[in-house]
Amino acid sequence: MREKPSLSRAAIAPTATVEARDETGAARAVAVGGERPLTIYVDREELITLMTLGQEPEHLVVGYLRNQRLVESPSQIESVQVDWEVFAAAVQTRAGRGIDGEAVRRRVVTSGCGQGTMFGGLLEEIEESEIPRAAPLRESALFDLLAQVRVRDTIYKAAGAVHGCALCRLDGERAEIEMFIEDVGRHNAVDAIAGRMWLEEIDAANKAFYTTGRLTSEMVVKCAQMKIPALVSRSGVTQMGLEIARKTGLTMLGRALNRRYLLFSGGEGFARE
Amino acid sequence: MREKPSLSRAAIAPTATVEARDETGAARAVAVGGERPLTIYVDREELITLMTLGQEPEHLVVGYLRNQRLVESPSQIESVQVDWEVFAAAVQTRAGRGIDGEAVRRRVVTSGCGQGTMFGGLLEEIEESEIPRAAPLRESALFDLLAQVRVRDTIYKAAGAVHGCALCRLDGERAEIEMFIEDVGRHNAVDAIAGRMWLEEIDAANKAFYTTGRLTSEMVVKCAQMKIPALVSRSGVTQMGLEIARKTGLTMLGRALNRRYLLFSGGEGFARE
Repeated sequence: MREKPSLSRAAIAPTATVEARDETGAARAVAVGGERPLTIYVDREELITLMTLGQEPEHLVVGYLRNQRLVESPSQIESVQVDWEVFAAAVQTRAGRGIDGEAVRRRVVTSGCGQGTMFGGLLEEIEESEIPRAAPLRESALFDLLAQVRVRDTIYKAAGAVHGCALCRLDGERAEIEMFIEDVGRHNAVDAIAGRMWLEEIDAANKAFYTTGRLTSEMVVKCAQMKIPALVSRSGVTQMGLEIARKTGLTMLGRALNRRYLLFSGGEGFARE
Repeated sequence: MREKPSLSRAAIAPTATVEARDETGAARAVAVGGERPLTIYVDREELITLMTLGQEPEHLVVGYLRNQRLVESPSQIESVQVDWEVFAAAVQTRAGRGIDGEAVRRRVVTSGCGQGTMFGGLLEEIEESEIPRAAPLRESALFDLLAQVRVRDTIYKAAGAVHGCALCRLDGERAEIEMFIEDVGRHNAVDAIAGRMWLEEIDAANKAFYTTGRLTSEMVVKCAQMKIPALVSRSGVTQMGLEIARKTGLTMLGRALNRRYLLFSGGEGFARE
């Protein structure tokens, strides 16, 4: 059996209350997203600083390392310890040799995408790997998911200025939200979900991924990397996000709200009822 | 007189029309944002790939180099040539020595912020430098700006899934939108405005910056770098964005729509009437 990394559990309050004045001049207490810097150190060497709400910081760190392809397997990670006193996440690898500087430069900078994320040969890799699918996403399950998202008690409702991502298990006409992460950026929210899926070896074949954010190329690439066969967004899609979804055979829906949606790609993975 | 860089003018169509099916099963032609990769080469060496709509790609490239502090003055740049046949922006520096690899690693990766942008000692630098202000932002000018943004013919209205940023000249009770850039990410839109301001040596003291996007730390830092004294967002703010605005004395308004707003910071730079 593979040993799992040891993780701290350093989630912190995702909102703070600040004072503002409204257009009448009245003072108002307003909840805002508790954005904080989190600097990742791998074997004591500084890698990058992410800005995060800190809901599941350990999963965010693992997912970031995974989605940037800086770590190949969770078994390479000994531990992730987040300490908000110093805004630091200390990653200890089993080999203890840190991350190859050239890999960092090549993957994060040179082959950057959307200001600082990955790509390079990644797209080719993704296109070649098949995305398994347990069963089509049914329209009734989609509506069930959208109804659950709508009534959910979210940081967004309290403070705005954040994006949410959810991983949902599909079971016929029903959808069950297994993870729901909000963060200041869509990328952090999807990375945190990716990290947890990777660590817990969660099967993606019977899942759908939901996001409040836009389906740009990076979002679609990250979902394809996780091998989640269906993507749903409350927001729109971009041309390149759509091209990648079509190339990889992902089922992709945009503008999904209440009982409305647009099916952009992968109709064979979707069952309208 | 300082020589200005020579720039191509390679703006391309920001939207594309794709086919989707709606919830009734009907086929619909839907406009989506024309996201494209643009790989920046400096003196023939690959630096990074940005995903962009390509409205003002040359200004985006210059603003990216500026906001990442990879180039210190526009006079260091000989030319920027964007070629969409190969999705490339070729930057030629006058010195012809490219960009120091260590600077790239230090600024883009190590001191990253919000997944891959800058920071490091930047915040201290910004706090020390004063932001000049010609006159307070008047509420009537704010409402004028919001009214103009509302009726503007935007890519967002056609295709969604993009963010807009505007630079506005303030003149008493009036606001004049001098630049309006939309892109797949807020960072690109603000970088494109920064690039043009830098090249054209535009005075920021009598300006306000408007964005449809959230005022996270990175957005506020970039506006402070441009020395724009007033920031207005249709969306919300984060705790860290607010902290930076307060430290640097920026006037910051969020949730600004029609005749409503929340004044979060820098009340001395705002005149309610």
